[in-house]
Formats: sequence, structure tokens, C-alpha cells
Amino acid sequence: MPKSPNSEPLGGKSEESPRPTARKRRSVRAVHEYVDGILAGDRVLLGQAITIVESHLARHREMARQIIEACLPHANRSLRIGITGTPGVGKSTFIESFGQALLEKGQRIAVLAIDPSSQLSRGSILGDKTRMSKLSIDTNAFIRPSPAGRSLGGVARNTRETIILCEAAGYDVLFVETVGVGQSEIAVHSMVDYFLLLLLPGAGDELQGIKRGIVEMADGILINKADGDRLSLARQAKKDYSRALHLFPPKTSGQAVEVLLASALEGKGMVETWNSIQAYAQQAKESGYFEQRRSEQALYWLQESIVGRLLDALKEHEAVQKMKPQIEEAVQNGRMSPFEGAERLLNLFNKSNK
Amino acid sequence: MPKSPNSEPLGGKSEESPRPTARKRRSVRAVHEYVDGILAGDRVLLGQAITIVESHLARHREMARQIIEACLPHANRSLRIGITGTPGVGKSTFIESFGQALLEKGQRIAVLAIDPSSQLSRGSILGDKTRMSKLSIDTNAFIRPSPAGRSLGGVARNTRETIILCEAAGYDVLFVETVGVGQSEIAVHSMVDYFLLLLLPGAGDELQGIKRGIVEMADGILINKADGDRLSLARQAKKDYSRALHLFPPKTSGQAVEVLLASALEGKGMVETWNSIQAYAQQAKESGYFEQRRSEQALYWLQESIVGRLLDALKEHEAVQKMKPQIEEAVQNGRMSPFEGAERLLNLFNKSNK
Repeated sequence: MPKSPNSEPLGGKSEESPRPTARKRRSVRAVHEYVDGILAGDRVLLGQAITIVESHLARHREMARQIIEACLPHANRSLRIGITGTPGVGKSTFIESFGQALLEKGQRIAVLAIDPSSQLSRGSILGDKTRMSKLSIDTNAFIRPSPAGRSLGGVARNTRETIILCEAAGYDVLFVETVGVGQSEIAVHSMVDYFLLLLLPGAGDELQGIKRGIVEMADGILINKADGDRLSLARQAKKDYSRALHLFPPKTSGQAVEVLLASALEGKGMVETWNSIQAYAQQAKESGYFEQRRSEQALYWLQESIVGRLLDALKEHEAVQKMKPQIEEAVQNGRMSPFEGAERLLNLFNKSNK
Repeated sequence: MPKSPNSEPLGGKSEESPRPTARKRRSVRAVHEYVDGILAGDRVLLGQAITIVESHLARHREMARQIIEACLPHANRSLRIGITGTPGVGKSTFIESFGQALLEKGQRIAVLAIDPSSQLSRGSILGDKTRMSKLSIDTNAFIRPSPAGRSLGGVARNTRETIILCEAAGYDVLFVETVGVGQSEIAVHSMVDYFLLLLLPGAGDELQGIKRGIVEMADGILINKADGDRLSLARQAKKDYSRALHLFPPKTSGQAVEVLLASALEGKGMVETWNSIQAYAQQAKESGYFEQRRSEQALYWLQESIVGRLLDALKEHEAVQKMKPQIEEAVQNGRMSPFEGAERLLNLFNKSNK
């Protein structure tokens, strides 16, 4: 269900339509209705509330704010798992298979995604719910495609807010899926408790597509498609990675990065993966690292939101936007220092902003 | 020569002194005198100009701006090498030894540093020039300690500006040294052409102190202290790292990370290291990556400067600073969402800022 940036969020009616009808007004619920619905685990109202959170309309921002703050006391309870890996590594198939294993254990799960490329392709990941056909029909699972039509900052912020809503709706395990090729994994890493990198057996080839730095972010590495002819390759890859990871600095968590084998296709390795993640979370909670990381993440998002809002104001400033390409060009070509460039843009901003 | 934030920069006279004397005024040179001196390679005037760049006084900022812009057309010519590694790995001894090897080849070298901890310790790296005693007396070498008394952003910005001045002064190779334990290597990585990580033989122990992510930033790894009893350990470490690095995504440069052995103590491996760095630079220039990276770095600093200046304005806002600790506390404890926190601080900022 990919959305265009300006598609309106409530029941197919645009708030910008010239003649608001009584029927339209009825379709807009009050904040407390959304909140009550979310707390009761109503997936339809949860979905509508997320649409409000993702909306670009100013009046929805205020509603979104109220919904989020009302949900906040009921949030913070799930285990948040980030999943990354290049296209083709089998992320969706893995989540479909892993998610079902969790459902069987009585966990309620939600799957979110951050994919800035969906701004262009209208949801290249999760856009098509049929890729997780079994999960999408389970009443204990909630799947939400990546919000579209915003900068990475906006997409990431929306996903971070959506986490609060999903937690208030009682989901136990949240997945945040991303494609490991850009800046988006930094955003995902900053909103999850556990960051899982999916790789293929015969390690190496798919690394071409992964952004450097992601391997070091991972709390766990899962070698997917460890089945059939690839099983021995996968076992060798596990051995190689386990050895290599010892040559890299330890994680802040103090826990070693475990390398796991799985076959989403055959449904193998799911229980082992869940046990490993649970053991990680357990130890992180005992050491206090779990809470510490969440607290640091909260401050990170405070800072990111402040910076994002300040930059938005610059982006909306006509004179600044008109001047910016020239200044960027001069800075890139070494005719102007970056500091002088910043000075000029901000002087312009401050002058006509008063 | 560590400086306190408010030490004044010109010849021991404070511009803030109540009665400016004729003698004091004479000690302040005109912008063109500094620029002419820098372009003539005058180390004393270069040093004084850098002090102006690092100054917190508003009138010096304007002078600094003019000096930097005047030097800019003469900058951009050196090879910029970042050096990182934990304390004890032998960075200063390596630079002393490597620097001398370069001087013998007719290269003029400058050594800068970014060390945010020097805000507390007054220059824990490079603060003591005697640690590079031979380099510091060579007329073809210029050593400048880390600027003190600012945030990392300020320190990094000053160093980035100082690079422009040193290049205009004709230095062929610039070293930017940093301690690999915090955010500072991201700043250094964003201002150099080649990022060298120093490790010890018997790989593993010193990794405890290194921030995760740094290994993946390195364009080259140098195993230092490869001498005496440690030589065989060093050779094994080289083998292990070379193998491990193949399991990580390739660098954007497209070039493999070379693992080098050196003994700064015995002066061994210096020529090999220089050959390796030169070969890297040569290939990067031929592929266009060298220019592309510099151009991206310039845009990075433009963006960083804009964000830094905007955040400075927030920091100087009394009401915001008064409210900030309460909001941070509420956000950290999950009583307020980061987005609501940002909203409140910015509303406060915008209200009383008009």
C-alpha cells in the first residue's frame, strides 16, 4: 500500500477538497478515538493513526503529536530488531519465516520498514504485502510499508514515531527492515535494540552492495539461504566471519557478535536465531546496557529532530534555496571555503527571516 | 603550546585589555601581511594566522575569514593523511620517523591534530612538541597542537581551516593525528585523502580502546612496533587482517586495504608505507575518486558548518539552555517523545528570538 506524499490519509477523503461534506467530517476521528483504538489493539485504527503521523498536512501534525504523546506511556515495551542486507539476500522471506516462528511462540509482531528509495520506486521493500503473504493475514501481525515521499530524515522520524504507536498497540517484537546500501541503516541502528545483518553463503559477492561500516554495526550476523548445495559454503562463511570479527573492536554492548545460519526457505535456524536474540537482550538488560542504549537513542532522536527542523526552515527559505546551488558549486570546486559558504547562506537566512 | 580558550592570540597582548596601547596595536598585523607571510612559507606568520583562526573573539573571526578565503586559491594541493590509533600504539613516534623519511625525500610536511580530550588535559596529543623533537626543529616541518577549549565541532572546523592555511604555505604532506576512541575520527576521515589506522602486533588487545567502525574507515592499516620479539606476532597479525578485510565490504575508493608492517623505533617500513600511500593516491587520482572524495568532503563541511552555526545559536539562547536539561531528562526517561522535546525547545527558541 504505497502512498504518494500528498495522498490524503483518512478514508479516501481529502481535507483539502474545496467543499467539505458532512460525510467527510465524520471520517475524521478524534484523537482519543485513535488512542483508545490503538490501546485496544485495533489494527485498522492503528493503521489510520500511522497515516496521520506520516501526513504532511499541518493539522495532522498536531493530531499526530497528541496521539504519540498519549501512546508514549504505553510504549517502550517491545523488543526492537533491525534487519538489513542487500536486495536478494532474502530479508522479506526471512521475516516471513522468522515472524511465523515467533507467532507460534505467542508473540505479537509488527514489521516496519525504512527505504528512502521508495520515494522513487513507491515502496521497493514491503510495498508489496504479498511478499509476506502469511504474516499479512495473521491477526497477531501488523505490516506497514515504508513511508514514502520524504527525505530520509522524515522517513526515519515517521518510523521512529510509528514504533511508539505499535508498542502501545501491544506488539511484542518489532522489526524494522532496511536495505543496507545507504544512510538508512544508521537511522535504523539508532532505533533498535538489536541489529541483524543478513548475508549470503559464499561470503563476499553480495558485500559489493553493502555500505562499509554496516558490518561493524551489527549485533548479529545471519547467513541466510544455508540450505542445499549452499550449506557447506554457509558453514565456511560462518567460520570465517566468526574468526574475522575477533579482529575488530568489541561492541559497546560488551557482547560478542554471533554468526548464525538459517534457511528461511526451509524454515531452519529460526528458533536458534530467536534464542540468540533473546539471550542477547537478557544479558543487555542485566548489564544495564539495554536501558542505556535506549536512553542514548532517545537523546539522539531529540538532537536529530532539532537539527531536522532547523534545516527544514532553511529548505523552506526561498532566497536561501535560490542561492544554494551556486554556493555548493563554488565550495565543491574549491573557489569558496565551506565555512564562507555556510556564512553566506545563514546571513541570507537571518536577514530576510526577520 | 596548549592554549586556553580565552588566551589571546597575538603576541601576548589581550585585545580585551582596558587601555589599548600603541604598542599593542602594532602587534596586530593586517590580513594581507599574514597572507603574504603564509604564501612565502613564513612559519611564524602561519602560526599566528592559525591562532587567529582558532580565536573566539568576534573581530578575529572576520580576519580569519579573510585570511582563509585569500589562501584558498593556493590550497588543495597537498596529500592529506589521517593517522589514528589508541594511545600507546606509537602515533607520535611513527609520525616522527615517517616524517623524517619524507623530509629526506624533499617533502615539506605539516602535522596537525584533533583531540577533543585536550579540552580537559590541555593537549594530550602533540601538546608536547618534544615528542616529535627532530621534526619540530626541521625548517621544512610545521607542527601544530590540537586547538583546545572548543567542542569537537569547533576543534574539527579549526583544523579543517588550518589545512587550507598550511597548504597555501606550501606543505606537501599534511598529517592529521587523532586518538581513535571517539567521534573525532569521523571528522578526520572527512578531511583527509588517506586514513591510516595504527595497530599493535598481537592484534586484539588494543582494540578494546578503539571505537567500532574505525577499522572499516581505514584506507590502510599499519602494524607498528613490528620489531624484535614482536616481529613474528606482527607478521601473523598482518596475515589475519589481510584475510579478515576480504570479508568486509570494499571501500568506495575501489582499492583494497593494504596491511603494512613498520617499526618507528628502527625506522623500518617507512619507505614501503610511503610507496603504498603514493600508489593509493595515484590510482585514486586516475580513477577520479580523489577529486570526487574532496568534493564530497567540501559539501560535508558546508553542511556541518550550517548545522553547527544553527546549533550554536540555540546554545547561546538562555531560555532554551535553561529548559534543555528538563526536556532531556523527560526524553531519556520516556516521559516525553524526542519529537515533542524538539518541538518545545524550538518553539521557545522561535518565540523569544523574534
